[in-house]
Amino acid sequence: MADTPYKLVLLRHGQSDWNEKNLFTGWVDVPLTAKGREEAARGGELLAAEGLEPDVLYTSVLKRAITTANLALEAADRQWIPVKRDWRLNERHYGALQGKDKAAIRTEFGEDQFMVWRRSYDTPPPVLEDSSEFSQAGDPRYAGLGEELPRTECLKDVVTRLLPYWDAEIVPDLKAGKTVLIAAHGNSLRALVKHLDGISDQDIAGLNIPTGIPLYYELGADLKPVSAGRYLDPEAAAAGAAAVANQGAK
Amino acid sequence: MADTPYKLVLLRHGQSDWNEKNLFTGWVDVPLTAKGREEAARGGELLAAEGLEPDVLYTSVLKRAITTANLALEAADRQWIPVKRDWRLNERHYGALQGKDKAAIRTEFGEDQFMVWRRSYDTPPPVLEDSSEFSQAGDPRYAGLGEELPRTECLKDVVTRLLPYWDAEIVPDLKAGKTVLIAAHGNSLRALVKHLDGISDQDIAGLNIPTGIPLYYELGADLKPVSAGRYLDPEAAAAGAAAVANQGAK
Repeated sequence: MADTPYKLVLLRHGQSDWNEKNLFTGWVDVPLTAKGREEAARGGELLAAEGLEPDVLYTSVLKRAITTANLALEAADRQWIPVKRDWRLNERHYGALQGKDKAAIRTEFGEDQFMVWRRSYDTPPPVLEDSSEFSQAGDPRYAGLGEELPRTECLKDVVTRLLPYWDAEIVPDLKAGKTVLIAAHGNSLRALVKHLDGISDQDIAGLNIPTGIPLYYELGADLKPVSAGRYLDPEAAAAGAAAVANQGAK
Repeated sequence: MADTPYKLVLLRHGQSDWNEKNLFTGWVDVPLTAKGREEAARGGELLAAEGLEPDVLYTSVLKRAITTANLALEAADRQWIPVKRDWRLNERHYGALQGKDKAAIRTEFGEDQFMVWRRSYDTPPPVLEDSSEFSQAGDPRYAGLGEELPRTECLKDVVTRLLPYWDAEIVPDLKAGKTVLIAAHGNSLRALVKHLDGISDQDIAGLNIPTGIPLYYELGADLKPVSAGRYLDPEAAAAGAAAVANQGAK
């Protein structure tokens, strides 16, 4: 066991093609936009300016998180660190909403249903049929999951699949004294922050994580934050979180 | 054990800053040039055009190989595969020649000594002092090596440190039926090709591996090639190998 505090950095991927188009993305594997690539590099510069040197990288198996991590580590000159990828860090599976326009869904189903699907803790959207062009049922990267493959998820489902991975893989690296960087997604990071900060099932609805800005935690021996998580660029983070909260509003 | 042939793809990194400047590089961690980045993406396009889908990636801990792999897998849409990095795939440590101009060394020490240092199987250059700006003695990525950290290497030394890793880590993935991509360096790949093709200590001097062009092997149950390794772009490979052979000539 290394001395505390343990050092953890969370990084939500930069803007993706479908963020820009205002579509529900979930497990659909869309690339970053040029703006998203710039955000990722800027995230790495913020790490370097802070003197934070990740010793190990965790990513989802989705390219928007992987490319974000690649570009951030290139900017921070830490490309050589070990990498672990796992589907348990993937974005929430958005079920039948994947590929749909957020504003159109809001108009068709109304504000209340829209917000339930987006922010309810335990109500998933309708399942996505395996025959959909937006399904991952035939994707080789998930071939090992069998019946565990999600067809829709609520945030509670994300917590359920994420925390065993956190405990089994990430926590041992933290306890070994490694600075851990996790490059992931809006909802997989919300699930983790909910756990770390002990946020209630109700209050988590109000938490939005901006893209591309490292969120730094120092954790005590009990793996709880010794102080509040801190964005390395607080002003940009506040503006970014507000933008996330307003998605689908136009 | 999966059915043979096992599938192995070797990829030498694209042009680096110091390739372009004609400097001995070795373990100095220099980035790719813009041309090198293009070569890397082209390598990935060649993989995709051939229908070769890597299941696992191995790289050195040097950014020119890592960035090459990142760009190739992005072009091939296989960014999600597991990644393993290890110093045993690094370029040959060029000892006191690291950071020196190849043409200047050739002029100062003469053609014969120059070719001994570049291509002799078992004569390493003079050791690099830890006080040199080009030393890796204080680099955190090698902190675990202790006295195993090279200060110079001949190709035989590279074979000696590479083959245990090949046997212990890479061969099991091949035997499990995974298509393995190794993104590495001119001399670490020469060491591996020497082993695979059973090239003599003398004849290996004449083997040059071009940058950025995937070299595809099908291996039998004895892990020997069932036919000659094949570059996915043979014409570009021949031109590239000739260019490597002529380094330092101007």
